[in-house]
Amino acid sequence: MSTTQDNAPQAEVLARLAQIIESRLPARGGDPDSSYVARLLHKGPDAFLKKIGEEATEVVLAAKDADHGGDRSKVVYEVADLWFHCMVALAHYGLTPADVIQELARREGTSGIEEKSLRKAVAREAAEGAR
Amino acid sequence: MSTTQDNAPQAEVLARLAQIIESRLPARGGDPDSSYVARLLHKGPDAFLKKIGEEATEVVLAAKDADHGGDRSKVVYEVADLWFHCMVALAHYGLTPADVIQELARREGTSGIEEKSLRKAVAREAAEGAR
Amino acid sequence: MSTTQDNAPQAEVLARLAQIIESRLPARGGDPDSSYVARLLHKGPDAFLKKIGEEATEVVLAAKDADHGGDRSKVVYEVADLWFHCMVALAHYGLTPADVIQELARREGTSGIEEKSLRKAVAREAAEGAR
Amino acid sequence: MSTTQDNAPQAEVLARLAQIIESRLPARGGDPDSSYVARLLHKGPDAFLKKIGEEATEVVLAAKDADHGGDRSKVVYEVADLWFHCMVALAHYGLTPADVIQELARREGTSGIEEKSLRKAVAREAAEGAR
Repeated sequence: MSTTQDNAPQAEVLARLAQIIESRLPARGGDPDSSYVARLLHKGPDAFLKKIGEEATEVVLAAKDADHGGDRSKVVYEVADLWFHCMVALAHYGLTPADVIQELARREGTSGIEEKSLRKAVAREAAEGAR
Repeated sequence: MSTTQDNAPQAEVLARLAQIIESRLPARGGDPDSSYVARLLHKGPDAFLKKIGEEATEVVLAAKDADHGGDRSKVVYEVADLWFHCMVALAHYGLTPADVIQELARREGTSGIEEKSLRKAVAREAAEGAR
Repeated sequence: MSTTQDNAPQAEVLARLAQIIESRLPARGGDPDSSYVARLLHKGPDAFLKKIGEEATEVVLAAKDADHGGDRSKVVYEVADLWFHCMVALAHYGLTPADVIQELARREGTSGIEEKSLRKAVAREAAEGAR
Repeated sequence: MSTTQDNAPQAEVLARLAQIIESRLPARGGDPDSSYVARLLHKGPDAFLKKIGEEATEVVLAAKDADHGGDRSKVVYEVADLWFHCMVALAHYGLTPADVIQELARREGTSGIEEKSLRKAVAREAAEGAR
């Protein structure tokens, strides 16, 4: 869909969004009566973790609909919802999307990562065959 | 955790990872016998959607453990796994992480987004009170 | 917890609950303005499937809490919520909890079922080891 | 699907299955090398909780397929898988399916339960409207 050439603004979006979310932390004075994120953080882990389970299911539903001719932009919308609530969780634990991206970079760097995952998948499927 | 100042490399990680994933698409000649991602894409939507449900649960488990003194880096690891499998799904539908980030930027831009989500949350909680 | 000796009333609960849910189907005149179940069924699959994803996450959260000294009865409550919403889904597809129990009985009957699942699990874990 | 008149055997299935699962508990000498359930229980909560998240996603996938002309019996199969792994979790916490059914019966008995859930749902939808 997107043909964005310059990636920098994208990373800025995540970093800026993470900063906004962090500013909603109870310790930073986030007000649960005037901010949705402050409210989630104030209610504690179960509130945002529940949302992660819920939004993951919505990604699955939107994807299955897209497979049957539904609107693909719904998939983008639901993945954005899922990542957003993951960022709320990260903030609660003092973590950032930069940490996640660093972890993704680490894997990309690890040559052979795909081979390992593949070995796992093949063995798993062989096992499924036993079913 | 991370104190990365320069955000550009982060966006490059996502863009580069997306390109690698796209190169594993069946239409691009991805080989299910030599690549984990090619295998997931070859098996079709249910394979990677199942992983999204699974990885979301693992985020929840790692987060609950972190709440009880467990290792926070496990949360980063599981969120990375979740986002990675979301990126596999995006590739299947011809979408990119840039689309997701654009959607997140759109929301950030929409002044008042938090107020709307907040109104929803407050009404929902009032409703829960009726339980 | 329970020490119920007579199992018959239990099966009656499921059968009776299934009948109540079925009576809420749109085709049976279920009124979305006066019944929660009729409303879910009226809104269609995504409404109750979303609840299944949500309630599964709540089971996981309650279980993790129980592991850390939380109230075990919360687990019962959340599993009941999950099974209830599964029964709503079953009704939509013209299925019943009796079908599910028949399937469970079939597996129990299949001598060797555990051995097959075990072979799968052992191979999967061997694969994980490659990680 | 099923037209079972006599519900007693169904409850027996659940009770018998629960007993088999309980006999696989580590404290009861369940052998992780010869039983799939003993292996799950031996590995601890995360192992079977992960399965609950996974199986809930599979119910959602099978249901979406059934909506698009797929085989409804797949829904039964996946709900059975989900309930089975819930029963493994229940056993770990010293709970039984009878406890879950008792909770379901309690709700059924509570006249007005549907009205309360309905009030919640209506308020929630009104809130969604604000989105």
